[in-house]
Amino acid sequence: MNRYKAIIAYDGTNYVGYQVQTNGNSIQAELNKALKKMTKGMYIPVCASGRTDSGVHANGQVIHFDYPADISTEGAKRALNSLLPDDILVKEVEKVDEDFHARYTVKGKRYIYRVSNTQAIDPFKRLYTLHHPYRLDLDKMQTALNAIIGTHDFTSFCSTKTDKEDKVRTVTKALVYRDETSHEVCFIFEGNGFLYNMIRILVGTTLQIGNGLRPVNELERLIVVKNRNEAGPTAPPQGLFLDEVFYQELDKSKLVQ
Amino acid sequence: MNRYKAIIAYDGTNYVGYQVQTNGNSIQAELNKALKKMTKGMYIPVCASGRTDSGVHANGQVIHFDYPADISTEGAKRALNSLLPDDILVKEVEKVDEDFHARYTVKGKRYIYRVSNTQAIDPFKRLYTLHHPYRLDLDKMQTALNAIIGTHDFTSFCSTKTDKEDKVRTVTKALVYRDETSHEVCFIFEGNGFLYNMIRILVGTTLQIGNGLRPVNELERLIVVKNRNEAGPTAPPQGLFLDEVFYQELDKSKLVQ
Repeated sequence: MNRYKAIIAYDGTNYVGYQVQTNGNSIQAELNKALKKMTKGMYIPVCASGRTDSGVHANGQVIHFDYPADISTEGAKRALNSLLPDDILVKEVEKVDEDFHARYTVKGKRYIYRVSNTQAIDPFKRLYTLHHPYRLDLDKMQTALNAIIGTHDFTSFCSTKTDKEDKVRTVTKALVYRDETSHEVCFIFEGNGFLYNMIRILVGTTLQIGNGLRPVNELERLIVVKNRNEAGPTAPPQGLFLDEVFYQELDKSKLVQ
Repeated sequence: MNRYKAIIAYDGTNYVGYQVQTNGNSIQAELNKALKKMTKGMYIPVCASGRTDSGVHANGQVIHFDYPADISTEGAKRALNSLLPDDILVKEVEKVDEDFHARYTVKGKRYIYRVSNTQAIDPFKRLYTLHHPYRLDLDKMQTALNAIIGTHDFTSFCSTKTDKEDKVRTVTKALVYRDETSHEVCFIFEGNGFLYNMIRILVGTTLQIGNGLRPVNELERLIVVKNRNEAGPTAPPQGLFLDEVFYQELDKSKLVQ
């Protein structure tokens, strides 16, 4: 068996999400189908760094799979790209040893959330941004976000539909800036891991701070109260991009699950 | 009656084209539907600068319509945008006098054609560019395009499915350049009018020149031979954008149809 790591990008618009579901097509199912064709019928399990929800995109999702033959990384990439639909792209394939695990050896992740802050929605961005036609105070939003840097219990920012008990995560970067060229307001989050819907609830709440609907110290307060119902709405999926997944040099004492 | 001119943008992906057809949804049908709601049931004819094909986009299509009430341009824009789907945007509404006609008073048009010149297709560009993973000699392509500047018979670059007899058009701009940031090769064409599929056949042929499959003086030769079968393939629709429509100061002696 040969273990391969692949970095993939996808447009999540037409999928029920990364993971196989009974109610529609998934990225994972397309990967399974492509690998099945490459192996002339074998089912090859694919493991990703984590799930993404329906409509959420990826610039740099990471997967691994064990392949029954020793193929070149370029050959694997070309074969997969020729078999996958146009909205899924294999950007890079690498041979890794069996200690590498796309999910268990994750060190951290970067997410981007894009907001079209224009009066009318650009038809070419409707699938890739949240349309938010209201005035935003970016300084207030950045000040608010500074409070989430560090290790905190993010219960207020976690969907109640999760079964994870440990809600403590470390956020290392939380930036918001305005791109004057694209008229977009972009959020960047980095951390060791993120809870279910955490980025989208953070964005939904921070936009309310930017609108003046909530005070600037609101994220700080929400970290303390640990109550999802007090936080803002979950921002819609189409603005969210899993941008990059970071892996450590196999120091297992620091594994992040 | 009050005549309104509107500049609209649309993502053509999910439409059979600008014009109403029996086999699917069209931009025009959506405009008619929105105007019908605004007037509580009246059918208001909408006239565009010209058709665009299925999958072709617009940054700046122009339409006009006669509205039974005297509404403000901001009000008309807001009402239309609230009634139109997210992939059609009214960018600007202007009151014009009855001499203005979206089609008959066109002075010229600008089209853009975008090509993703990367080995693999970016999933987020699949609906907005032609994927062309081959090496292109941009200098040769630009030299070739220089030959179409001016007034020529463009029969070789016109779909045989047209019923227009006059194939003479004036091209005032034909540029190709590489955008290093986006890894795109972009074509820009301006002229007083373009025949059916003319831009797409010009792009298909010029790409073959860029690939070395045709000599650099090929466009010159094709203008002379006046035979569609000798030109290259029609490039696919999704790379094409109607970028802007130009109108003259109502000098009817120069009308271009």
